[in-house]
Amino acid sequence: MNKILVVGSIGLDTVETPFGQVQDVLGGSATYFSVAASFFTPVNLVAIVGSDFPEKEIGFLQSRRIDTKGLIINPGKTFRWKGKYSYDLNTAQTLDTQLNVFAQFKPVLPADYQDASFVLLANIDPELQLEVLKQVKKPKFIACDTMNYWIDKKVDALKKVIAAVDLLFINEAEIRQLTQELNLVKASKKIFSWGAKHVIVKQGEYGALMFSQGSVFSAPGFPLEEVNDPTGAGDSFAGGFMGYLAQKGELSEKYFRQSTIIGSVMASFNVEDFSLNRFKRLKYEEIEQRFKEFKRLSHFEETL
Amino acid sequence: MNKILVVGSIGLDTVETPFGQVQDVLGGSATYFSVAASFFTPVNLVAIVGSDFPEKEIGFLQSRRIDTKGLIINPGKTFRWKGKYSYDLNTAQTLDTQLNVFAQFKPVLPADYQDASFVLLANIDPELQLEVLKQVKKPKFIACDTMNYWIDKKVDALKKVIAAVDLLFINEAEIRQLTQELNLVKASKKIFSWGAKHVIVKQGEYGALMFSQGSVFSAPGFPLEEVNDPTGAGDSFAGGFMGYLAQKGELSEKYFRQSTIIGSVMASFNVEDFSLNRFKRLKYEEIEQRFKEFKRLSHFEETL
Repeated sequence: MNKILVVGSIGLDTVETPFGQVQDVLGGSATYFSVAASFFTPVNLVAIVGSDFPEKEIGFLQSRRIDTKGLIINPGKTFRWKGKYSYDLNTAQTLDTQLNVFAQFKPVLPADYQDASFVLLANIDPELQLEVLKQVKKPKFIACDTMNYWIDKKVDALKKVIAAVDLLFINEAEIRQLTQELNLVKASKKIFSWGAKHVIVKQGEYGALMFSQGSVFSAPGFPLEEVNDPTGAGDSFAGGFMGYLAQKGELSEKYFRQSTIIGSVMASFNVEDFSLNRFKRLKYEEIEQRFKEFKRLSHFEETL
Repeated sequence: MNKILVVGSIGLDTVETPFGQVQDVLGGSATYFSVAASFFTPVNLVAIVGSDFPEKEIGFLQSRRIDTKGLIINPGKTFRWKGKYSYDLNTAQTLDTQLNVFAQFKPVLPADYQDASFVLLANIDPELQLEVLKQVKKPKFIACDTMNYWIDKKVDALKKVIAAVDLLFINEAEIRQLTQELNLVKASKKIFSWGAKHVIVKQGEYGALMFSQGSVFSAPGFPLEEVNDPTGAGDSFAGGFMGYLAQKGELSEKYFRQSTIIGSVMASFNVEDFSLNRFKRLKYEEIEQRFKEFKRLSHFEETL
């Protein structure tokens, strides 16, 4: 089975939504990604935490199929993020960010991580993403994520990353900002001209669009009755996508489409509860069940 | 073949978008609806225009399968709307509205319109919508549309309309305003509790959700590279939906879903050009072709 290498952030989040609040709970892009992907395939994790990081959370990651040999524990405090969502739940308001040990993060891959075939460069400094790419030997499929902060601050490095990856995960506002194109079809073509072969545009509750050269696939958003905390939805999406694709191991349109739905499935579960609480009690049968519900949600007869 | 009765507005629109502008061109909810529906089934039109309304436009409607016996031509000026869209194209800014003869509109159905089996109450005063309902004898399927103005001004009459129809077409912001529910699943349940059996929530470029009691269907938005004027997209959607459903004549989940896609197809064509220009040159083969493209856009294999 293909393992996935993920490099990203682990943090302790304090989050307030109209439906509750939590303090210093497990979060971070690499965390949501790893746990979502681990339902489908083993994960090698490269990240950094401080000496205050709860041992039980490391134990939780290890209890999944997540190898934590690449997890650096440095003296000092773990990365912290504090955010708030209002009723529309679409955009977080960042109240506070403390980089702490994350400011010292220099990803170094353990020897047996270097022949990773599936790689996810989660949302970190694109210069660090480029450092990781130098250390992987013959990857079969590389994807990256990013955010508006890097589009503002390090767009040249980010474009180098995009030139080197197979797939870019990005949200709607970010791809418009990055490409200076409002139309998503045109925006995706610009991304292709920079080198990536696929772009997945995340649209929050509306689902996601996967653009490939010559085709486009629309995954619906799942109409949930209870959404409690959207934190980590995008990373859970990427984790489900990459986990399922790595499990199948074949880079075909069929599996790209199914992986996009699996990504949506994992995101839809994640937002039902705070932190990674929903994943902690999620069963594989529930994933299969919701995949079928996505099929029912979007199916129509082909013959007019 | 089942005919459709539509009661709504006909106007002359002046529209500016980032891609061009037009002055005093054919518009109005009943116009977009009728022309979109006429690709699938004959339409009986009830509306009002002024003596300044261009004869060639009446000729255009008649050249389609649209019966204009119910079109009142009163002395005075036709309803006029002036609006502007900025780059996001999602919401129109109304610059000017002149009701003109539309202020005198009292819909009276010609005798042979009264046994209509499919009825669309387009976006007009809900009290007039109720007047129309009193005049139809044994309709098989009734749908209505509305807008924020009536939610603000005549919510009680609107709720009476909703109690009397089978399907409500409404956009996302409007259903939230009307039901005071942000969550669309909960909002649709509130609509059901008022009487309607189906709700189609229009989400602009993101597509549409059709809620029925016990099921939900998601129709994707079509990723267009050129969008020139979103005016009439919702009415074109309703026209495609009702036209195809009336053509099939069977109120089954299969046809509800296909009708939702046909609605999306017609909306996607309409926004490609100003006024009804795209419909004027649209061929049935293009509709079939785009329906297939919607299938390709949303299809994925069922077996994991």
